[in-house]
Amino acid sequence: MILSALATSVGINLALTVLLAGAYTLLRRRPAYVEVYSPRRPYAPLEPWLCAAWRRSEEDIHAAAGLDGVVFVRIFVFSIRVFTAAVVLGVGVLLPVNFLGDQLRNIDFHDLPNKSVDLFSISNVQDGSKKLWLHFSAVYILTGIACYLLYREYKYISGKRLDYFMTSKPLPQHFTVLVRAIPVSEGVSVSDAVDKFFKEYHPSTYLSHTVVHETGKLRRLLEIPAAFVAFKTRYGAANAIYIRQSDNPTEWQTEHAPDPHDVYWSFFSTSFMERWISKFIVFVASILLILVFLLVVVFVQGLTYLEQLEKWLPFLKNILEIAVVSQLVTGYLPSVILLLVSSCVPSIMKLFSTMQGFVSVSGIERSACNKMLRFTIWTVFFANVLSGSALGLDIFLDPKEIPSRLAVVVPAQLFNVYSPKYDTGGRFWPIVHSTTIFSLVLLHIIAIGVFGLKKLPLASSLLVPLPVLTLLFNEFCRKRFLPIFEAYSSESLIKKDREEQSKPEMTEFFNNLATAYCDPALKPIQRSSNSDEHTAPLLSSS
Amino acid sequence: MILSALATSVGINLALTVLLAGAYTLLRRRPAYVEVYSPRRPYAPLEPWLCAAWRRSEEDIHAAAGLDGVVFVRIFVFSIRVFTAAVVLGVGVLLPVNFLGDQLRNIDFHDLPNKSVDLFSISNVQDGSKKLWLHFSAVYILTGIACYLLYREYKYISGKRLDYFMTSKPLPQHFTVLVRAIPVSEGVSVSDAVDKFFKEYHPSTYLSHTVVHETGKLRRLLEIPAAFVAFKTRYGAANAIYIRQSDNPTEWQTEHAPDPHDVYWSFFSTSFMERWISKFIVFVASILLILVFLLVVVFVQGLTYLEQLEKWLPFLKNILEIAVVSQLVTGYLPSVILLLVSSCVPSIMKLFSTMQGFVSVSGIERSACNKMLRFTIWTVFFANVLSGSALGLDIFLDPKEIPSRLAVVVPAQLFNVYSPKYDTGGRFWPIVHSTTIFSLVLLHIIAIGVFGLKKLPLASSLLVPLPVLTLLFNEFCRKRFLPIFEAYSSESLIKKDREEQSKPEMTEFFNNLATAYCDPALKPIQRSSNSDEHTAPLLSSS
Repeated sequence: MILSALATSVGINLALTVLLAGAYTLLRRRPAYVEVYSPRRPYAPLEPWLCAAWRRSEEDIHAAAGLDGVVFVRIFVFSIRVFTAAVVLGVGVLLPVNFLGDQLRNIDFHDLPNKSVDLFSISNVQDGSKKLWLHFSAVYILTGIACYLLYREYKYISGKRLDYFMTSKPLPQHFTVLVRAIPVSEGVSVSDAVDKFFKEYHPSTYLSHTVVHETGKLRRLLEIPAAFVAFKTRYGAANAIYIRQSDNPTEWQTEHAPDPHDVYWSFFSTSFMERWISKFIVFVASILLILVFLLVVVFVQGLTYLEQLEKWLPFLKNILEIAVVSQLVTGYLPSVILLLVSSCVPSIMKLFSTMQGFVSVSGIERSACNKMLRFTIWTVFFANVLSGSALGLDIFLDPKEIPSRLAVVVPAQLFNVYSPKYDTGGRFWPIVHSTTIFSLVLLHIIAIGVFGLKKLPLASSLLVPLPVLTLLFNEFCRKRFLPIFEAYSSESLIKKDREEQSKPEMTEFFNNLATAYCDPALKPIQRSSNSDEHTAPLLSSS
Repeated sequence: MILSALATSVGINLALTVLLAGAYTLLRRRPAYVEVYSPRRPYAPLEPWLCAAWRRSEEDIHAAAGLDGVVFVRIFVFSIRVFTAAVVLGVGVLLPVNFLGDQLRNIDFHDLPNKSVDLFSISNVQDGSKKLWLHFSAVYILTGIACYLLYREYKYISGKRLDYFMTSKPLPQHFTVLVRAIPVSEGVSVSDAVDKFFKEYHPSTYLSHTVVHETGKLRRLLEIPAAFVAFKTRYGAANAIYIRQSDNPTEWQTEHAPDPHDVYWSFFSTSFMERWISKFIVFVASILLILVFLLVVVFVQGLTYLEQLEKWLPFLKNILEIAVVSQLVTGYLPSVILLLVSSCVPSIMKLFSTMQGFVSVSGIERSACNKMLRFTIWTVFFANVLSGSALGLDIFLDPKEIPSRLAVVVPAQLFNVYSPKYDTGGRFWPIVHSTTIFSLVLLHIIAIGVFGLKKLPLASSLLVPLPVLTLLFNEFCRKRFLPIFEAYSSESLIKKDREEQSKPEMTEFFNNLATAYCDPALKPIQRSSNSDEHTAPLLSSS
């Protein structure tokens, strides 16, 4: 890519942003468009909503969007911090050093805008130069900063998660266990079997149960061997989840019940075999998707090399030689194509996760999020390797962006558009943590390779402890914090149970608990048809 | 290896076996040797002990050597069955087919004893021959038989394990939890902290506790933050193990207490840092051990090629040309050297596992067993690949032998020499299961490669589903049976607790439970100095 093409791309993007923001500011006050923007209106009537979103305190966010909202904003801020550190090191120190290198000679300063971006990359530093130790230090410093920030966030968010639990009002999912693979003998109903089993083995804590009914197209209201079982205490529910119930591990399988709004009821209408086949199809389809996307990336990377493009499409030669067109094609077109193609991927990933068989919408979304991250990492990685730009500065900065790619699409919207239907209590954070660790280790491996190619083997050797230390740090965090995101402790459960034991509102809560888990398809229809969306306009919930 | 050398080796081994068995039969009745053989005497005074061991029923074995004894014998029988199937297919079908092949021509039948063993291997079958479909079928049949036998054993042993639990007399380890990382504030003893915590969160089931005291050389009787906590019911103990106790996952860590005789007390005298460093040393030492052993294997495999040896050691050329010497060197010496070197490995593996920090002797031995298996698999595999005999029949039979290698050293001795100090309730079986699965998949991969080399690509392609099916079968067994080996279910625990609730002998049991976990180093010395052996002569326990 030549430098002037990059500048053209930046210019066009800036102009488009200003244009769109201006159009929004003008149009949203016109009566004809009130309906379109109405959900945002009550929140930012006088000042731009973007500024308003930025000024909210953490308490505001918690109140409006739950702990998940707080965690998303923190992920965003965390990404900005890591990215800032990378930019300061990269643009402030490495970029000038790279540019002043003399590996890629014959620089004509007057023709700078047409020179390759490679002049700013590590490729331009002389092989074996002592200046490379600056790059070496940058890797250590960046890893140190990223790990410190990760630790701080993990500690803060896990503390918040404990607080969130201790201060939450009684929630049905804390008292309820989803029981599957209920063995039923001839002539006994699922309901009776559940009642008998839990009265036998959990006599003091068992409260009630709701058998799940199938809602498939033709096979209506069959007796499915799954039930939501409610307990009198959170600790009683935990007992039923963490200790295997039956001698036969394939029967009486228990797991956390999701938030009642979060249950993905269609899950129960699929058979075990259907889920297995779907999983296999998803596996094959995922591989195909990556292959297709890689082809697109290779084509797009090809665009940035103008000569290549002229060879592929000789009839365009004349047009491509016009300066503006060549800058558009090499600088702007690749990112637009990539963006358009990438924008389809999240929906495909969500479809894949839906097919895989999750019992909750949040499970589907967490899985889709994981798939999206893996997809991004592998395509970014392979795309760079395939296009031969592994030595570019790009890769030194790229993997850092992954958490921000995840985060940037979500937070600013939290206030003004949607209210979440469910809250996972910040369970998205461990995904960000492990992705950042993966990115760091990938960075180390690439850096070890780069220092080898740049004939500084000592730097390569001295980098080897860094991924080991990073993985040890990850192991420590897994031991120290991850269990908090997986389950609450006896200490918390029992404390919380005791605190609420004698509260008068618990009677009403337990009365409602019995009917909390009910397939909306079996209720009289009250909601709009797009009820499979996990988010609903705020107005409808206010 | 030439055939006559193989025959010489078989002859020498047979002669040695007869000689040693004869010497034992004669010597054990001489008064001078009575002391040496005395532990065996009470069990087989009139007839050979080997026969006696073979005739025992499963109930006898259970009574004398616990469920572990039964499982070991079943592992042995399982191995014999798989091996028999392999021998029937290999010797009965494949060997004649291989021998009648004509890939390795110029056979002079009169000189058969000097011909290479390769004549009996698949190498001798013509490339692309239809006879190779017999080998193809053999892989499918053998996999089918092995998986069927695995399933049968897993089902039988897990059933036995459940019976064993339901019929066992009350055992201290079922009522006790090992608690580590007990946080202690200034001025509060470990004992008080344990008492306070369990009285607070397990008031109805907590019984008593024993704080672990350090028994290191100089630092005697310090206050270690670990304790054995006894509960009134098995279910109460399970509650404390399977639900995380503290909000901080690194504090109040609970796990199953081992059998009191099985506790490896030295574990408590090592610090967390010491265990980490030991783990690292063990990791490095394991790699070195494999490398050293591979060198030995390569050298030994070199011995079987006489010309190679004459090149290495030219001064031995004259001696090596004597027929008997050459047969000894190529046929017998390699196996003797390998056997001698291999015989050191188990002790080294046990030393490694001891250094890694396990709280129980059985944990150390299970880990050593796993290490030994991995070591055997990798060295057998690499040794075969390195020595270039990957096409030999050897590999088709070798991986099958691994479970029998594990098993063959143990069972026949169970009766007559040792009484076990601890019983894991058959927890060695899952190791055998997963090793067999690994061996099968390795067999499939090698077979896919072999059919490719023998120019029968269709057979290679048709073998691909086999490892996938084998791994699916393994996944099914992991879901269906493995949990039974990891923990008992609520159903079992509560049933067993209720059965014994009102039995009069429970009062005495609970009285003894309080003192069951006590470091023998803190007791008055009563035993011999080799108390770190997990097995003790039967006479001393009778």
